[in-house]
Amino acid sequence: VHTCFLNYGDPMGSWEFREVIAAYLRTARAVRCDAGQIMIVSGSQQGLDICSRVLLNPGDPVWIEDPGYSLLRAALNQAGRRVIPVPVDDEGIDVAAGLKLCPNAKVAFVTPSHQYPLGFTMSAARRLQLLAWAQASGAWIVEDDYDSEYRYDSMPIVSLQGLDLNSRVIYIGTFSKTLFPSLRLGYLVIPPDLVDRFAAVRRVIDVCPPQLYQAVLADFIRKGHYARHIRKMRLLYNERRTVLVGSIQDQFGSLLEISGDAAGMHIATITPQDWDDREIAARAARRNLWLWPLSTAYLGDNRQKGFILGFGGVAASDIPQAVSLMRRVAREAL
Amino acid sequence: VHTCFLNYGDPMGSWEFREVIAAYLRTARAVRCDAGQIMIVSGSQQGLDICSRVLLNPGDPVWIEDPGYSLLRAALNQAGRRVIPVPVDDEGIDVAAGLKLCPNAKVAFVTPSHQYPLGFTMSAARRLQLLAWAQASGAWIVEDDYDSEYRYDSMPIVSLQGLDLNSRVIYIGTFSKTLFPSLRLGYLVIPPDLVDRFAAVRRVIDVCPPQLYQAVLADFIRKGHYARHIRKMRLLYNERRTVLVGSIQDQFGSLLEISGDAAGMHIATITPQDWDDREIAARAARRNLWLWPLSTAYLGDNRQKGFILGFGGVAASDIPQAVSLMRRVAREAL
Repeated sequence: VHTCFLNYGDPMGSWEFREVIAAYLRTARAVRCDAGQIMIVSGSQQGLDICSRVLLNPGDPVWIEDPGYSLLRAALNQAGRRVIPVPVDDEGIDVAAGLKLCPNAKVAFVTPSHQYPLGFTMSAARRLQLLAWAQASGAWIVEDDYDSEYRYDSMPIVSLQGLDLNSRVIYIGTFSKTLFPSLRLGYLVIPPDLVDRFAAVRRVIDVCPPQLYQAVLADFIRKGHYARHIRKMRLLYNERRTVLVGSIQDQFGSLLEISGDAAGMHIATITPQDWDDREIAARAARRNLWLWPLSTAYLGDNRQKGFILGFGGVAASDIPQAVSLMRRVAREAL
Repeated sequence: VHTCFLNYGDPMGSWEFREVIAAYLRTARAVRCDAGQIMIVSGSQQGLDICSRVLLNPGDPVWIEDPGYSLLRAALNQAGRRVIPVPVDDEGIDVAAGLKLCPNAKVAFVTPSHQYPLGFTMSAARRLQLLAWAQASGAWIVEDDYDSEYRYDSMPIVSLQGLDLNSRVIYIGTFSKTLFPSLRLGYLVIPPDLVDRFAAVRRVIDVCPPQLYQAVLADFIRKGHYARHIRKMRLLYNERRTVLVGSIQDQFGSLLEISGDAAGMHIATITPQDWDDREIAARAARRNLWLWPLSTAYLGDNRQKGFILGFGGVAASDIPQAVSLMRRVAREAL
């Protein structure tokens, strides 16, 4: 162990780890990058927060997806940014609606691979439209690719960053979904001309990321364990997903619509509008069944009712029982 | 390994680790606290940044010590806080001067145990004066106790937080100096009525601290290794300090004044005012000798010239040679 390993490091992270991540992203996600553009962060939440601090001033308008991720909204509100909720349809964020609501937004935060929470994959047309807007208006796009490693029915989709010829995209990835959340380890891919600004801001936030995890994970990835782990888990999650979707169809028939099951570790189910998803989720929680009410992920008035169902941590054999408990609880609450 | 160990945790940190730290601080630093007030952070820099975000709005005035720590100043400037440099004398921050410059500052950031960089210990009278100001004006005091574990000539000094009867002090400690910086591990002690606000802000910054280091360090401290390590290192650092002070007196006589050698892992040497400390430091750096120019730690016009000399990472046997190289370089530059 060298002294430099124990000492303060580069605010961007260890060079060795950044090289490994850049190589992985070029192959797996068609991200255009080299190691100099990678910044190691404490999970995607720190990535979102640093983007907000570097790219925005108090009062600046920002597009976020509606429905969307509550901790992104909380970070932007807390920093005094002006949040513009833009509706999402089955092609992703509705760019035309965004242009009507606020054409001069400075940043758009999006989840193109697997929209959170509805699970749609952003269409190619919508991706090009979003990139064209950013290029024309000088805005930035933050692509949160939190859930991209697991696709079940098709080849992985190229990242938005990989389509961008004008360096308008900041890409965020995380190890929380592929390894475990308490690692607190993720990364940004930063356009080359913004790297110095990001590094300066990161330095005053917490100087640099912790060293030990970076060294271990660099080794883990370089030796092929990470790719093997993802292949193995994709099979496992695919089984859980298939059982979950099948159980919901068995028990609820056409009553529930299923959304976003082509990728990731959660699906959304849309219930009839007269179901009280918050009440049902509260009742389920008292019986140790965790259903996230979909309506709480919306900011605007067009709130769909339903549940966000994570299946990453549940054995396939336990799923049918959980779904029938969900059905009993829903029936009691109606 | 339980699932909960791998999952997202409490934004304040793991309860087990917080209990161990609270017990340590009550004994070693006379801090008044229980585990519920402890927040685990990524080193003292994240502690400073979180304090700035919770306690201050853009444009709010803040007292900082002059001379002082450049990364604190950078964090406050970057967040748009109004920095008021308050001079330091041999009793610590000059509260009377602060009251003249800006009586309605919202926060004072101070280093009472070992002022950075001059190394003075804040006097009891000054501590009481600072606490009285905070209580009267409703201001907060952030006590950065970065270097408190190593005192050489006297018993440890009670923390400012331990003297405070009105919960106006946020205390910051770090493992960077006692273990190693690339751990990125420190802690805050938060007044009980501010805990919820701190937790909410921390959650949007990076959700929670990484779990593994906390579990390892909780064990390390509880089993007595940490206290033993500090006792052992205090002897080692005391030897290095004694050799450094002796070598400077031997080689420079009364030309250099030594400041702050009663505690910590650095001393400050004050040179005659006509020495160009930045030029000498630049020349020394080309010969692999690291002298931090003291004048760059000042914001106001009354800049003393000199060097901040860290001795934590240098073997005692190498010190006399390093001091004579310093003398040769200084002579060449004059």
